[in-house]
Amino acid sequence: MSTAHEHPLDRANPLAAIEAAAAAVRNWGRWRDEDVLGTLNFIDDAKRAEAAGLIRRGTSFSLAQSFDGDGPQNGWRRRTNPVHTMLDTGADAALGNQGFPHGLGGADDVVSMPLQASTQWDGLGHIFDRGLAWNGRPAETVVTSEGDLVTGIEHTKDSFVSRGVLLDVGALLGASLGTPGELPDGYAITPDDLDATIAAQGPSAAVGRGDLLLVRTGRLARARREGWKDYAGGPSAGLSFTTAGWLHSREVAGVATDTWGFEVRPNEFDDAFQPLHQIAIPNMGLSIGELWDLDALAGDCSRDGRFDFFLVAAPIPFTGAVGAPVNPIAIK
Amino acid sequence: MSTAHEHPLDRANPLAAIEAAAAAVRNWGRWRDEDVLGTLNFIDDAKRAEAAGLIRRGTSFSLAQSFDGDGPQNGWRRRTNPVHTMLDTGADAALGNQGFPHGLGGADDVVSMPLQASTQWDGLGHIFDRGLAWNGRPAETVVTSEGDLVTGIEHTKDSFVSRGVLLDVGALLGASLGTPGELPDGYAITPDDLDATIAAQGPSAAVGRGDLLLVRTGRLARARREGWKDYAGGPSAGLSFTTAGWLHSREVAGVATDTWGFEVRPNEFDDAFQPLHQIAIPNMGLSIGELWDLDALAGDCSRDGRFDFFLVAAPIPFTGAVGAPVNPIAIK
Amino acid sequence: MSTAHEHPLDRANPLAAIEAAAAAVRNWGRWRDEDVLGTLNFIDDAKRAEAAGLIRRGTSFSLAQSFDGDGPQNGWRRRTNPVHTMLDTGADAALGNQGFPHGLGGADDVVSMPLQASTQWDGLGHIFDRGLAWNGRPAETVVTSEGDLVTGIEHTKDSFVSRGVLLDVGALLGASLGTPGELPDGYAITPDDLDATIAAQGPSAAVGRGDLLLVRTGRLARARREGWKDYAGGPSAGLSFTTAGWLHSREVAGVATDTWGFEVRPNEFDDAFQPLHQIAIPNMGLSIGELWDLDALAGDCSRDGRFDFFLVAAPIPFTGAVGAPVNPIAIK
Amino acid sequence: MSTAHEHPLDRANPLAAIEAAAAAVRNWGRWRDEDVLGTLNFIDDAKRAEAAGLIRRGTSFSLAQSFDGDGPQNGWRRRTNPVHTMLDTGADAALGNQGFPHGLGGADDVVSMPLQASTQWDGLGHIFDRGLAWNGRPAETVVTSEGDLVTGIEHTKDSFVSRGVLLDVGALLGASLGTPGELPDGYAITPDDLDATIAAQGPSAAVGRGDLLLVRTGRLARARREGWKDYAGGPSAGLSFTTAGWLHSREVAGVATDTWGFEVRPNEFDDAFQPLHQIAIPNMGLSIGELWDLDALAGDCSRDGRFDFFLVAAPIPFTGAVGAPVNPIAIK
Repeated sequence: MSTAHEHPLDRANPLAAIEAAAAAVRNWGRWRDEDVLGTLNFIDDAKRAEAAGLIRRGTSFSLAQSFDGDGPQNGWRRRTNPVHTMLDTGADAALGNQGFPHGLGGADDVVSMPLQASTQWDGLGHIFDRGLAWNGRPAETVVTSEGDLVTGIEHTKDSFVSRGVLLDVGALLGASLGTPGELPDGYAITPDDLDATIAAQGPSAAVGRGDLLLVRTGRLARARREGWKDYAGGPSAGLSFTTAGWLHSREVAGVATDTWGFEVRPNEFDDAFQPLHQIAIPNMGLSIGELWDLDALAGDCSRDGRFDFFLVAAPIPFTGAVGAPVNPIAIK
Repeated sequence: MSTAHEHPLDRANPLAAIEAAAAAVRNWGRWRDEDVLGTLNFIDDAKRAEAAGLIRRGTSFSLAQSFDGDGPQNGWRRRTNPVHTMLDTGADAALGNQGFPHGLGGADDVVSMPLQASTQWDGLGHIFDRGLAWNGRPAETVVTSEGDLVTGIEHTKDSFVSRGVLLDVGALLGASLGTPGELPDGYAITPDDLDATIAAQGPSAAVGRGDLLLVRTGRLARARREGWKDYAGGPSAGLSFTTAGWLHSREVAGVATDTWGFEVRPNEFDDAFQPLHQIAIPNMGLSIGELWDLDALAGDCSRDGRFDFFLVAAPIPFTGAVGAPVNPIAIK
Repeated sequence: MSTAHEHPLDRANPLAAIEAAAAAVRNWGRWRDEDVLGTLNFIDDAKRAEAAGLIRRGTSFSLAQSFDGDGPQNGWRRRTNPVHTMLDTGADAALGNQGFPHGLGGADDVVSMPLQASTQWDGLGHIFDRGLAWNGRPAETVVTSEGDLVTGIEHTKDSFVSRGVLLDVGALLGASLGTPGELPDGYAITPDDLDATIAAQGPSAAVGRGDLLLVRTGRLARARREGWKDYAGGPSAGLSFTTAGWLHSREVAGVATDTWGFEVRPNEFDDAFQPLHQIAIPNMGLSIGELWDLDALAGDCSRDGRFDFFLVAAPIPFTGAVGAPVNPIAIK
Repeated sequence: MSTAHEHPLDRANPLAAIEAAAAAVRNWGRWRDEDVLGTLNFIDDAKRAEAAGLIRRGTSFSLAQSFDGDGPQNGWRRRTNPVHTMLDTGADAALGNQGFPHGLGGADDVVSMPLQASTQWDGLGHIFDRGLAWNGRPAETVVTSEGDLVTGIEHTKDSFVSRGVLLDVGALLGASLGTPGELPDGYAITPDDLDATIAAQGPSAAVGRGDLLLVRTGRLARARREGWKDYAGGPSAGLSFTTAGWLHSREVAGVATDTWGFEVRPNEFDDAFQPLHQIAIPNMGLSIGELWDLDALAGDCSRDGRFDFFLVAAPIPFTGAVGAPVNPIAIK
């Protein structure tokens, strides 16, 4: 099923493919010169009000992986797992070490972490294409050592509320690929695969304007079973470079997956690094979510046959951040 | 209006008051011995489904303050403001310093911060009463140097979804107190004040089982106007110690305010430190939110006369944390 | 005594003064194109062997200020004081929380800090002059988001061992300026002042090739008495811009002071920021030390009349750092 | 040569061995009740003055390993490698992003790290024996969540200056063990081995009161050749548990090695964890150094036949720290 239609790939010529795809999906100027939201502009109040109608049972699902030292990060580009330490503890409270009156005791804590250590949204300042950031701004004027001065994640603090749709490609295709429930490493999910999954899942899986699309590969389920190993940066199923046009034409507001890197790895060119990011973030202005945990939600969707839901996935609005942790909540 | 009915205070005898209030509202064993959620148990699917009906226009409000170095923290008990630094920048991308192929550039970042530096939920392991944590567990077995081994915030990752209700006490009482729109420092909000606000705001402000109650004092509005000064730890309006019984009898799931410390400061006893925390967290099992930004939401509620809404306030689920940052989203 | 001879200052024209001073003292190419040490090249084995002869009594003096949360940093340019937290404690050990066998208990800790939070050496990559770093290298090729790729402080790890000389200008001039033992804020120490101090202190205070020069203003003594206040970044005595030539001609290897900023503040031009840094670091290649505690050593030197000593001031060699903490040890 | 004389080991009964060894070498009360220095008390001015006579050529050797993200830490007990990030860079300076006048540009940086991530001294609060810290103090009163309130490393800030002696056991015994220049993993260095090394190296290797003893196993040399692998926490040569008495009787002030853990690993009992630490730190009050780089110094000592030198190894005096980074400088 991995036949790519929209942008057939010449593995040996990534730059030409990148140039063509970028030109085809570029949204610069689509909203306004000052825009800092990109495809989040597809979400409006009407969209959110309509999505609220998807809440029936009232069941909530956290789509966050854990945030702790036992995570997938391995130091690549200085990304470590969160280091959580205590400023005060119950042990000290019990021993009377704290100096509070009348039996009050307290515990307090700090964390040190890369903002993309675990479940996160990439900000629009996370990736540049040939020196340019979202909306065509020079990268060096957008993200300096002081952070993202223009498109910091704080601008999206109330934006990530919309209809969510889960496409469980791993469940649909895994069995036929010899890995039931999961896609094998290196499997590039094509536009046809997305369409086939929608068709198989039924009308609740239709994808359209303003949706937050969640694509499950099963990669996290495997990591949970076998250990993290090279979950971060290593081989994985993921979206094909050829899905750029599909995502563009559906006018999705954001896309998240249960993988480290959103797109397939190894990438589909002989020499490239995350080329779909290069198209999606600076050119389309698409918000990308990574390291999400879609397994419990997928199980529920499979059981009740409904693959859409109300989704609130509001990142912590660190000023100037190019990515931020999020505890996404799907409600059915 | 500051007449306290339920627990008249003897300023000189805090321990007796603490003992009495703790006994009156203690929820230990109410759910089960293994309980790690406390009053969040008041929220169930039916409550959430009903709350979803409050979404009409589809407008979303982030109730998060900013997360950056310009925050209120002043070093007290080693709480600093977040330090956000970059691992990669657009400047380096533009200068070709990064080594990625085909024009891809990237930015990445890290943060070091106390978990309660800005908008947050206290975890149930945050406060102890005479050596005991929530549900009567010995503090030293719950929160060690490795974190909260029992009631870590990760257990609540899908819990904070319910009906929210805003009581804008600052708006109601500020004018008559000489501080229009805001309560003066040291003002203790009593049960009568809460009832009066509900009465003034009308039926949408009724408070009941499973609600997430937001109490606006106006303290943040003043900090925004005048600078942080001693917002963290200094004098402030806040809930009176005497509201413990009111909160208990209404069976609220959580309470958050626009102040640093939730309860009035200075505290209402000659010698005490955050005595309402000591009642609410370890005894009631009540989730407390602090440093929220309720101003935009309050303006909207005032305009349309509806003070309840769907609230998703899911903290980042740091494993073993005794508090965690949150970007709360109210949707009307 | 504040008459500047070598570079008379036109307060209104800092750029001309900076250009002239930079040209006058520039050491680019003096050693070799690949040089990463600057004036530390003035120290050689013979110098160190000779300096060892200054050890007579065997008394050692740490010249480090404390490293903790009660330091001078105030958040300016995101410089905070060190945050020190525990990974394990004696409290947990005593309570049996650690799981080690046979009664072993342990404590462990972490720190998060700016590298120049307390007593430190500036690295050669800390300051640039019109886009150029030490030895004329383009700044953007030297210090990227990955750190100082060329002149990182690790290259100096065995260099800071030499004869130290203390010039206690505060002790000499303070009384006549109305601040006994200390210089008043804004006092610019001139070449004449340095010469006068040497003359007053006697032959052991002579300054020459390869020396590590310590200049005491008394600013720290005042902070110790009055609190930090604006010790970091505020007004202070310090070296005059006009000392660049003096330092250059004496061929000192490094200079450290008991102030935050080494040079006088406010700076001596109507509009400028640390112009002596701009001359000394990228042009001379001079190592600058800040936030040193010279008080105990000064007392001893005053008592025995000997102002030189063996000095070992080896920074922690963080790879790629543009500054690093040091615990300097003077031995007499 | 691994015959242990002083404390023959019963592998099956570590607690009895620990009790006996602790009693045999315990220095509690040897100096004074308030003592916070332990065996560093063996160093006095006369010792330092005498040691200064060992400086002949003036050559200095840094004994620090590197401090960066490519270090040996692997997350065990939350110990990570240092994370170094930039607050400002040359790239931003070159692009004019910084706002300083007249062409001044700057770079600045921060670090987040465990204090024992790389070359370090253990503090006296690092290890406890059956609930007691150095000098018999209850562990829970010494090291709380606020750090070491009694024996913090800051008390030693001017202490680590003395005669250093290198015993290159790896060089002496490696060849006969089949690993030339290095000891094999699990090799326990006995008192006899130490004596044999002294005998082989000659009079300059004599070990006595107040010396800082450096024992080279060759473990780091192997890590340099083969990669870190399990350098941190894994198998390694190191001091035998049986050396406690030898170290005690020689009255050394401190001992450091080129390994992660100072003592042999796996430990010499069937079930134990770092039992020599348990004897040496809380009972003897011995300062232990780990992760030192002794290779260049060892080469020099071998060439000139002199194994003693002046050693200045002053840790960064973090207030309340139970360990601290150090850049030790040996001068010959």
